Amino acid sequence: MSEHQSSADKDVDGVTERHNARMARKKEVIDKKIEAARREAGVLVITCGNGKGKSSSAFGMAARALGHGMKVGVVQFIKGAIATGEENFFRRFPDEISFHVMGEGYTWETQNRERDVANAEIAWQRARELLSDPTIGLVVLDELNIALKYKYLDVQRVIADVQARPAMQHVVITGRGAPPELIAVADTVTEMQPIKHAFAAGIAAQAGVEW
Amino acid sequence: MSEHQSSADKDVDGVTERHNARMARKKEVIDKKIEAARREAGVLVITCGNGKGKSSSAFGMAARALGHGMKVGVVQFIKGAIATGEENFFRRFPDEISFHVMGEGYTWETQNRERDVANAEIAWQRARELLSDPTIGLVVLDELNIALKYKYLDVQRVIADVQARPAMQHVVITGRGAPPELIAVADTVTEMQPIKHAFAAGIAAQAGVEW
Repeated sequence: MSEHQSSADKDVDGVTERHNARMARKKEVIDKKIEAARREAGVLVITCGNGKGKSSSAFGMAARALGHGMKVGVVQFIKGAIATGEENFFRRFPDEISFHVMGEGYTWETQNRERDVANAEIAWQRARELLSDPTIGLVVLDELNIALKYKYLDVQRVIADVQARPAMQHVVITGRGAPPELIAVADTVTEMQPIKHAFAAGIAAQAGVEW
Repeated sequence: MSEHQSSADKDVDGVTERHNARMARKKEVIDKKIEAARREAGVLVITCGNGKGKSSSAFGMAARALGHGMKVGVVQFIKGAIATGEENFFRRFPDEISFHVMGEGYTWETQNRERDVANAEIAWQRARELLSDPTIGLVVLDELNIALKYKYLDVQRVIADVQARPAMQHVVITGRGAPPELIAVADTVTEMQPIKHAFAAGIAAQAGVEW
């Protein structure tokens, strides 16, 4: 206990001292990790899982990229039956972000596989244009995972096009059911795990939160 | 196999038919769930866990809310040593979003618990102003979980202030280490689980993605 007695009068139980020592060790570890991670590269980010936050995280990255003066391209693969908050908002900046809503609503709404496949193909052509444009710093491919899960698009073809993009371009792919082949080639993958959801408690999807 | 033979000539293996039947069942289940979830309410969303996407998800919700014509308030509790993309971007709209960066960098950067506590207290006063303003539709309390984890702020006091907010106001709280008391009172909680991260592969934090 002698080391605690030597601390400042106010810090009678050593909380501050222990906290500061822990933070000093933490700073050392993190500084070392930052030193090790120096390579600059365009990253492929995937957000998947059943929890809330996959698409919203991608649109937060879009806001970040715009804040750094980057140009952004968005293709929404599945949604599109109703105008979303993100679409309304980002369409304000047509010189900075190109926003393409290609779907006709969720897959279970169209009830027509052939039409879904045709729509996915058109959306992928738009995505390829963005992926070959070196002036675009971030490409958001929203709900692409669902189109891959239902095999509306071939995953190997998608991977080849994503990997052929400009070296410093970032790509974010969202949606449930990310195929393992895509996860294997990604740089950062987060699985959004639902701990609880307002929907299950009878609260409707809220504007500004879910759409 | 007779049911497959009865399908269209092109659908020789029944893929489209089975898909359509599955989608029809899915539509029924989802339509029922939507019917059940009818209550309109301000929701408390928490994003936690060690994976990427907690803050970016909150800023995506901010973009959504702005797209629905809502006013937004943001308090960043811990970050702040460097100007982030989200700050640069959202500061463009001072009439629609009030953006407050209160921290002095990450906790392990300041190396001073008393200063961290004092900063958290000032930040919470700002948060309380937003939480008592019925014209604000969404309040983002970024990295508040870290301030709670290190007990810079009392969790019961935070919960009381959050629960006393206007009935239709949404709140998003982000950061690692969300306390169980907060999770217990939240409506929607997502844990961001890291499957992999570019940082571990030696790639530096990228502008437009991580900040």
